[in-house]
Amino acid sequence: MDLRGRTGAAAMKNPASLEELIAALRCLPGVGAKSAQRMAFHLLQRDRPGAARLGSALQQVLDAVRHCERCNNFSEAVVCDLCSSPARDPALLCVVETPADLMMIEQAQCFRGLYFVLMGRLSPLDGIGPKDIHLDRMLTRATDGAVKEVVLATNFTNEGEATAHFIGEILGSRGIKATRIARGLPVGGEIEHVDTGTLARAVIERRAI
Amino acid sequence: MDLRGRTGAAAMKNPASLEELIAALRCLPGVGAKSAQRMAFHLLQRDRPGAARLGSALQQVLDAVRHCERCNNFSEAVVCDLCSSPARDPALLCVVETPADLMMIEQAQCFRGLYFVLMGRLSPLDGIGPKDIHLDRMLTRATDGAVKEVVLATNFTNEGEATAHFIGEILGSRGIKATRIARGLPVGGEIEHVDTGTLARAVIERRAI
Repeated sequence: MDLRGRTGAAAMKNPASLEELIAALRCLPGVGAKSAQRMAFHLLQRDRPGAARLGSALQQVLDAVRHCERCNNFSEAVVCDLCSSPARDPALLCVVETPADLMMIEQAQCFRGLYFVLMGRLSPLDGIGPKDIHLDRMLTRATDGAVKEVVLATNFTNEGEATAHFIGEILGSRGIKATRIARGLPVGGEIEHVDTGTLARAVIERRAI
Repeated sequence: MDLRGRTGAAAMKNPASLEELIAALRCLPGVGAKSAQRMAFHLLQRDRPGAARLGSALQQVLDAVRHCERCNNFSEAVVCDLCSSPARDPALLCVVETPADLMMIEQAQCFRGLYFVLMGRLSPLDGIGPKDIHLDRMLTRATDGAVKEVVLATNFTNEGEATAHFIGEILGSRGIKATRIARGLPVGGEIEHVDTGTLARAVIERRAI
């Protein structure tokens, strides 16, 4: 009797709602079929309150969170707290790739201006072009009359560098001063993971491009 | 100016509902603070439909999925399809640790009896005792009069072996025949990951204990 390679098997299935949960968990980045099944079993067997909390958190966040119409960061208000703050210098606009990068720069306490969050970077190979990183809105923001300098704080990866270069060219052609945070960060490094001292030094030593 | 070790910083926060989502994602096994933030940003920025699907899947599964009152597996009905099937042999009861193990044995197409799913294994170091793996219900199930043989298909890990030994002793003291799937599985191996041929061989060659 050959026990290998039995293919005619009608595979045993989980209940439909459990199969749907396993499929839905795969929308999380880095979660494959086995991880999704393990997560679903864990929630059902060991942490039903956690599952309920996650379910309502997801629904709430979708209702509540939009993009700030000035800086494009996640916000529950039309204009976020940071953009509304009278303590910030409206002459400085720092352009970052992600909300995590913005938070790191805030933690470094080296910048008192405002931000624009691209929510991505130019990456032609992945089909991410100027529209996907909201360049039109960024330019409108940068040409509001108050902004005197745009600090480009994209990552020092290939895509981040290309994005900074691209934005710098456009701003230059419109007569707006653009600066780049200093190359104090290691080449290939990412802002989210650097220590705050190095990051602050890089912001302070930004140079004209 | 010392840029390192600035500790007085009021850390920049995400909107409250986004912070709550990040906290809630940490109930998933293997998800830490950074992963949770990355997942939340990904859902909000790139996959809002996926987030909505996951949210409703979680709420549905909590409403719909219970434990089958016969086999203790996840089920939407009081008694699951497998336990209700007239095609299965009620004289054979296979005891497994998890639903994933049950599905692997079904895929191996080597067993036509019924199951009991412990939803765990004895592990005194983790505080998991006989109550946590529903041994009372398993014994009630094994002593229903129809069951002639209990096949112990727990993993060949230390905890799985100890669980099989413990259950075997109790069944023996009550005059119920207990068998153990054959040691065709590699020592330290887990049922969920073995190929179906090896697994089928191990079930067929089960031995009395």
